[in-house]
Amino acid sequence: MHNRVAFIGGQTGTWRVIAMSAVCGQPLSSVTAIDIVPVTAPPTHAPSVWSLHGIASNVRYAERHEVTELRARQEALGRPHARRAALIPIKKSDAWWDLAQDERRAIFEAQSHHTAIGLDYLPAVARQLYHCRDLGEPFDFLTWFEFAPEHSGVFEELVSRLRRTREWNYVERELDIRLERTSDD
Amino acid sequence: MHNRVAFIGGQTGTWRVIAMSAVCGQPLSSVTAIDIVPVTAPPTHAPSVWSLHGIASNVRYAERHEVTELRARQEALGRPHARRAALIPIKKSDAWWDLAQDERRAIFEAQSHHTAIGLDYLPAVARQLYHCRDLGEPFDFLTWFEFAPEHSGVFEELVSRLRRTREWNYVERELDIRLERTSDD
Repeated sequence: MHNRVAFIGGQTGTWRVIAMSAVCGQPLSSVTAIDIVPVTAPPTHAPSVWSLHGIASNVRYAERHEVTELRARQEALGRPHARRAALIPIKKSDAWWDLAQDERRAIFEAQSHHTAIGLDYLPAVARQLYHCRDLGEPFDFLTWFEFAPEHSGVFEELVSRLRRTREWNYVERELDIRLERTSDD
Repeated sequence: MHNRVAFIGGQTGTWRVIAMSAVCGQPLSSVTAIDIVPVTAPPTHAPSVWSLHGIASNVRYAERHEVTELRARQEALGRPHARRAALIPIKKSDAWWDLAQDERRAIFEAQSHHTAIGLDYLPAVARQLYHCRDLGEPFDFLTWFEFAPEHSGVFEELVSRLRRTREWNYVERELDIRLERTSDD
């Protein structure tokens, strides 16, 4: 699977941990660095403290006009100037997953403006969502953001706006790991 | 994961294979029986010819009124009189997965009436959908149906109606495995 990745937490890696906290729910063990590697079977990465797997999958809520606008404005991961990153693993409650598709879509966008809020921070904040609920992982999503150090402030604003939405009432576990790139590649 | 299962194809199992064919795309090796087992790690089932994994996940298209109607009319798997079954693994094309959510929903229901067609055969045909695209499996879905022998005819009609829909233009691999229960439990 070319689109399946693992976030490997340990002592070495491309991304050095700046800060790591549990926003709600149980924390993960502290690590000093994170590597992001494509998942091949069997896993071949060196021993780590933890690893979280996710997959870049199809969109679940975005409608055509939103997909078009996102693609027009967003930039890819790996921009040289984007030396800061955030890994925010999220688990939503059973109450969320028991909702029908139209109910989840209504909370996600009509009430919480999730896509619209994200658009306000493009292209400064590059994003990638990895799904992992169906993989039997401890989280439902691994959300990954990359931005330049001078955009750290606007990134805080993005995160803060999302956490105040009605959608976030359904978040029962959320970690927040801030990182900076250790290498020049 | 209590809701993750494996369909194990081999020489023994609860369900004896009556017929097995590829509707489109590559076939699987022939087997004489299939067992359905909860997936625990590591897998402990006896040697098999193949195994397909899937997970009973949240709904992806059904709206509240449809979920309510489905729940009111459908019956659970494992009914003693439902001694026939069908396992129909399906893989859809990249063109399908590249569509936005509203485009897939429109094809699925407004144009293809997928849920409405299924409702016509409730409660005779009990169904369970397992997702597997995000698991890196060869199929996107494992669809499972159970019915009494006297409902074999109406089941053929259900399958035939679905295969004539616009949604099925996006199916690029589909197998059809028909089974009968070998035990009384």
